[in-house]
Amino acid sequence: MTADQTSAHQVQVIAIDAMGGDFGPEVTVEAASIACASSSSIRIVFFGDEVKITPFLDLYPSLKTVSSIVHTDKVISNEEKPSVALRSGKGSSMRLAIDAVKEGSAQGIVSAGNTGALMATSKMVFKCLPGIQRPAIASVFPTKHGETIMLDLGANLSCDPEVLVQFAVLGSVYARAVKNISKPSVGLLNVGSEAMKGPEEVRKAADILSHIKFPGEFYGFIEGNDITAGTVDVVVTDGFTGNVALKVAEGVGSMIRHFLKEAFKSSFLSMIGAILARGALNRLKGRLDHRFYNGGMFLGLNGICVKSHGGMDAYGFSQAILVAADLIQNGYNDNVATEIEQVMSQEGFVTGSAVINE
Amino acid sequence: MTADQTSAHQVQVIAIDAMGGDFGPEVTVEAASIACASSSSIRIVFFGDEVKITPFLDLYPSLKTVSSIVHTDKVISNEEKPSVALRSGKGSSMRLAIDAVKEGSAQGIVSAGNTGALMATSKMVFKCLPGIQRPAIASVFPTKHGETIMLDLGANLSCDPEVLVQFAVLGSVYARAVKNISKPSVGLLNVGSEAMKGPEEVRKAADILSHIKFPGEFYGFIEGNDITAGTVDVVVTDGFTGNVALKVAEGVGSMIRHFLKEAFKSSFLSMIGAILARGALNRLKGRLDHRFYNGGMFLGLNGICVKSHGGMDAYGFSQAILVAADLIQNGYNDNVATEIEQVMSQEGFVTGSAVINE
Repeated sequence: MTADQTSAHQVQVIAIDAMGGDFGPEVTVEAASIACASSSSIRIVFFGDEVKITPFLDLYPSLKTVSSIVHTDKVISNEEKPSVALRSGKGSSMRLAIDAVKEGSAQGIVSAGNTGALMATSKMVFKCLPGIQRPAIASVFPTKHGETIMLDLGANLSCDPEVLVQFAVLGSVYARAVKNISKPSVGLLNVGSEAMKGPEEVRKAADILSHIKFPGEFYGFIEGNDITAGTVDVVVTDGFTGNVALKVAEGVGSMIRHFLKEAFKSSFLSMIGAILARGALNRLKGRLDHRFYNGGMFLGLNGICVKSHGGMDAYGFSQAILVAADLIQNGYNDNVATEIEQVMSQEGFVTGSAVINE
Repeated sequence: MTADQTSAHQVQVIAIDAMGGDFGPEVTVEAASIACASSSSIRIVFFGDEVKITPFLDLYPSLKTVSSIVHTDKVISNEEKPSVALRSGKGSSMRLAIDAVKEGSAQGIVSAGNTGALMATSKMVFKCLPGIQRPAIASVFPTKHGETIMLDLGANLSCDPEVLVQFAVLGSVYARAVKNISKPSVGLLNVGSEAMKGPEEVRKAADILSHIKFPGEFYGFIEGNDITAGTVDVVVTDGFTGNVALKVAEGVGSMIRHFLKEAFKSSFLSMIGAILARGALNRLKGRLDHRFYNGGMFLGLNGICVKSHGGMDAYGFSQAILVAADLIQNGYNDNVATEIEQVMSQEGFVTGSAVINE
């Protein structure tokens, strides 16, 4: 099986770092079988230890027909510092998978390995798309009425206004190209909705976004509760705030699940109640299933890279594969390249910088 | 009724801005009756329009015996800018209530009015406690296993390391003096737990907290999910991050309630289930009742000031009154004054600054 660059949108060849994550091939191979079962246009190249991958691959005959293995016994550990991984990671499953995308034998890479190493290596190998200074980590979140995409979730600790504007472009192109929202609304996360509120870089970014034409529609400032309220299609923030927001949301969800379980166990009547309402409760569980929202997209790089949470099971990892396939199928990076050129050609747009989170 | 300064810890005289909030005296007076019913040592002085307050006060004969009214028909509106409120707010219900604490005829003020005006006015009138450069807004949050206090929730957009250290002192003294935790654990909110992670000011604050003696015990960095996990007793962060975290938590709670209601309504069986589990679900609702956690404490000022959410009902506002009474009864400000002097006398502690959120 080889990747055909000209049919990039018809067939999506995904390079999988088979050894990454807490469980390695046991999870990554089953995940690939789930992803391929749900989309017939996905092809897989596993990078990792052939001896460890093959027994699991043997369990999924139909996956075998659409996948191949590139052997390496070198793995980047979760403890490795990004700078060390950059220097000594050559020949590792993660690095080879990234290289495959760079060389064109795959169109996207998915890994559940060391986040810092994945970001540093993919940045070095892929470089940023023209006009984009810094990649952002983006993910989709459930809201009361649907979904929203938020970025940055941790690649940059703080961002210049111009970098925030680039994130707004990256996010809107995603909402348009992948989620089919023709004019996505974009909100800047802040501590109030009035124009005078918030840090200087956020106010300056708002000023630029109100004046330029870009693929989305600038809504203005939003507050933390607007994320789940579904006020906007795209939430833009720096990586420090985005990371805290993401983890606070996870924490509150986990606490409420904990309380809910305790409540249902508290009496015989409530246990019966929970059994009767089981179908409804399972639907609720499904709606809030964090596995479904697994897949941190490294947007802004000249190559598709998706990070899965390290502790994900096969279903969760399969969602990250599907996220990568979606980005490829919808020509995400080509769309960004076209749009960012138009944004940058406008007056009042200058380049900025960001403080990197490493 | 007059306030007796020497019996500050036995009787708590609370000045209430009766006109503040979305509902005015209808809510603030009923709230006072709830607070006084739950604590016999609370005395109330209402500041506001006597004609509007009296009819509600007449409804609560026992409240009448422990309260008085100071008349004014001037009110600071929610739309007033803090700077304007400072200049022209003299004689308003909010300003008179603050002045009463300054002059010693009350020991704490509670208002559901304009947050910016309340912060600016109380700061100007009270000033900061010696050794404290900036006040912080603090509040108590539910966790899986109990409660935690978080600050700053929005008074300062960004903070120097030394200001974050002062917040750690303010929070630990609260946990010790009011919540009876002898050696409260203090965590700095960050995007990772490793020492090299995060913005410079957070890393510097961690460095100071690891070296000095203060009323709490420095746990290290925590992440967003640690807040509700109950990892520490005190969560310290800047006002921008704290405000986003607070509102994200509110938003996620609101979304899950919404999903839960929808789930129970989705079928006849699940409706029956919800009815059977009603007791348990009500207990859950109680545990997550944001009214119970109402009361943003302005810590670090030389005067007790508590902000109630503007849209709170009487039960919610009564909790803010009880928060103020708790701070007074436990001599919170005296405790801070003693502790901060000891902290400042240590080597390696210098003064810093913060960017104010106005």
